Amino acid sequence: MTRSDTGRAEAFSDAVIAIVITLLVLELQPPETEPGGLLAALLGQWPTYLAYAASYLYLAVIWLNHKSAFTRIREMDIGLHWSNLGILATLALLPWPTAVIIDTGKTGNLTDERVGVALYAIIGALLCLSWLVFFSHLARHPELTEEEVEDSYFARERPRAAAGVVLYLAAGAVGVLVHPLIASVIFVILPVFYGLTSHGIEHRPTFLRGI
Amino acid sequence: MTRSDTGRAEAFSDAVIAIVITLLVLELQPPETEPGGLLAALLGQWPTYLAYAASYLYLAVIWLNHKSAFTRIREMDIGLHWSNLGILATLALLPWPTAVIIDTGKTGNLTDERVGVALYAIIGALLCLSWLVFFSHLARHPELTEEEVEDSYFARERPRAAAGVVLYLAAGAVGVLVHPLIASVIFVILPVFYGLTSHGIEHRPTFLRGI
Amino acid sequence: MTRSDTGRAEAFSDAVIAIVITLLVLELQPPETEPGGLLAALLGQWPTYLAYAASYLYLAVIWLNHKSAFTRIREMDIGLHWSNLGILATLALLPWPTAVIIDTGKTGNLTDERVGVALYAIIGALLCLSWLVFFSHLARHPELTEEEVEDSYFARERPRAAAGVVLYLAAGAVGVLVHPLIASVIFVILPVFYGLTSHGIEHRPTFLRGI
Amino acid sequence: MTRSDTGRAEAFSDAVIAIVITLLVLELQPPETEPGGLLAALLGQWPTYLAYAASYLYLAVIWLNHKSAFTRIREMDIGLHWSNLGILATLALLPWPTAVIIDTGKTGNLTDERVGVALYAIIGALLCLSWLVFFSHLARHPELTEEEVEDSYFARERPRAAAGVVLYLAAGAVGVLVHPLIASVIFVILPVFYGLTSHGIEHRPTFLRGI
Repeated sequence: MTRSDTGRAEAFSDAVIAIVITLLVLELQPPETEPGGLLAALLGQWPTYLAYAASYLYLAVIWLNHKSAFTRIREMDIGLHWSNLGILATLALLPWPTAVIIDTGKTGNLTDERVGVALYAIIGALLCLSWLVFFSHLARHPELTEEEVEDSYFARERPRAAAGVVLYLAAGAVGVLVHPLIASVIFVILPVFYGLTSHGIEHRPTFLRGI
Repeated sequence: MTRSDTGRAEAFSDAVIAIVITLLVLELQPPETEPGGLLAALLGQWPTYLAYAASYLYLAVIWLNHKSAFTRIREMDIGLHWSNLGILATLALLPWPTAVIIDTGKTGNLTDERVGVALYAIIGALLCLSWLVFFSHLARHPELTEEEVEDSYFARERPRAAAGVVLYLAAGAVGVLVHPLIASVIFVILPVFYGLTSHGIEHRPTFLRGI
Repeated sequence: MTRSDTGRAEAFSDAVIAIVITLLVLELQPPETEPGGLLAALLGQWPTYLAYAASYLYLAVIWLNHKSAFTRIREMDIGLHWSNLGILATLALLPWPTAVIIDTGKTGNLTDERVGVALYAIIGALLCLSWLVFFSHLARHPELTEEEVEDSYFARERPRAAAGVVLYLAAGAVGVLVHPLIASVIFVILPVFYGLTSHGIEHRPTFLRGI
Repeated sequence: MTRSDTGRAEAFSDAVIAIVITLLVLELQPPETEPGGLLAALLGQWPTYLAYAASYLYLAVIWLNHKSAFTRIREMDIGLHWSNLGILATLALLPWPTAVIIDTGKTGNLTDERVGVALYAIIGALLCLSWLVFFSHLARHPELTEEEVEDSYFARERPRAAAGVVLYLAAGAVGVLVHPLIASVIFVILPVFYGLTSHGIEHRPTFLRGI
């Protein structure tokens, strides 16, 4: 049996997100050290661990939101496919500015650190923008959603995605104009905040509430 | 429950395309620079960004066409499996000539640039050829397609694939004989053109038209 | 048709575990040698082969346990999703301490070897801890499991996971205080022991017993 | 809905084979050359292209046989899961001796070339052995196969797998005792022969015969 458009888009997205989230963790390598210096070298890598943990959490939140959105989608048109491919393209970019920030942290040049957080802010804003496009398409095409989903459901998801675009750009601006470290802290907090307040997760079936 | 031949071929193809499209994006690395030179280094990489964007678009179009074709396939025989494996083998090759073109662009040797676009043209033509074989097999075996699909459907897909073979080879010839840059521009335009005019996408269910 | 939460979590977990287990094996590279020295170089890599075999076995046991647990799960809530994402995050870390131990084995510095086995013990304990969280969540939420599963089933899985946390930390302590080699041997034995005694495997349908 | 044991084993195997077959092709890199030397460098890599083509064909045949076998499997027990995991472990090893042979071909040391083909022969024999174990398990457990499958079906698959073990070891012996090149040629022919004569492919539904 041929799988439906939704089934294949979900399987394809699962594969893409699984590759990005796994390669992120697999990139951890044993540090090069002089004999006897392993412990210090491992401890000295803590910013890398923090960056990996933050990226893993972010991608996990994205997967949960993706899954949550697709349980409400009955059918896909070509516009929704392209929106989904846009989300996948931008989330696959995330490891790149993450690696740039880790690199600038090592050399400690303030100009480069500003460029690094600006790059991260742009990619983060693009990712929120791709979700905004995705939700807007669904809001304009209620015929694509499951019958039991309220027509206003995906319209109500839009402001949160739009806020994300603004927040990432604002964090980048603060990082460039004030100090890069403030931007880095906001980058870690934003996905946690989005994860905890996710609409898709709040509106789960009644018998699962209060967990 | 064991999945059908179609289901497994789709899942296997999804995994292969997901790996190729994701590793493409993940290959972006922070540039090596002197302190303070990050911004210039990032901006200087623009041909790489363009090449990645073009490759991502191309592979996304291929995935959409693949999905579109398989919604019309009811059953697979060994010939269709091998045609599909041929498509997967050639699309997985795409990052290779892409990387060769990026490399020749960096050194700027005109002889090498001609070789680069010729290689890309050959791989692009092979990819169109593998689709031509795939569509021809389906055109000769209507018993493999879903009942509601017109017998002439896949026969009508053949000229577009055949044109692709000719167009890629012609672009390569122009690149070698006139200037490589012309070929590179055609390589970016071709998949966009194929994406916009895709038969599978035009013939979508009535209620999705006009999106 | 949109896949259920359970279906997507299983597909996503399959993809993550498949990537980790495959990249592990694919990391084997031809050794760099002087002409004529290949045989000696290949034989000299035996600790690497052993480490890969042990890691493959460990991840295979984890996949079997994961599959076994999910045949008993009817529905997922957000807590169970996060527990599952925690298991995936820690199992994807496994190749890292494995590579560290292989590296310390090559240089042969005893201090570094102690750090290596301590790191492995911590990651191994974290992995068992993530299973403990997963089983505890299911034990507290019988409404998530299939009807034919006894309410006490996942509660009875907890002591084995808790024992794993203790055993890994104990092995690490012995490795640091007595000798790292003892810890390495325990790291190879533990997953085999867990594989052979797995609850999920013992309680298989009657007609499959005695295999 | 939780997927059955068979469904998950198929999805997991698809992911592993997709990763191995794709990374194989993706490993092709632009050659490092002096300006103007690209064409010669690309043409000089022909043994690498041949090795990749042969490995791709081999893995494609394995995937087809795997798919073919699983359409006849109704249910999996733990022994069948371990047999399947054994097949996956050995097929993921294939790129390793392939890379070793390519490397020894570059240096051209005859002793190393003998070691290379011997290594390939051992891994090839192990792969056939893992299929032999898989088929034997199914032959002994007819309760695991679909009802319409003859009880003798998997018993009849065993001699071909056993022959593979012998043929790979014989090819390796010829490569070591006579000349490595003879072994390399046999390594390319063997999977083609197995692909063309595959039992699972011969016994396809009547209406697909003669394709």
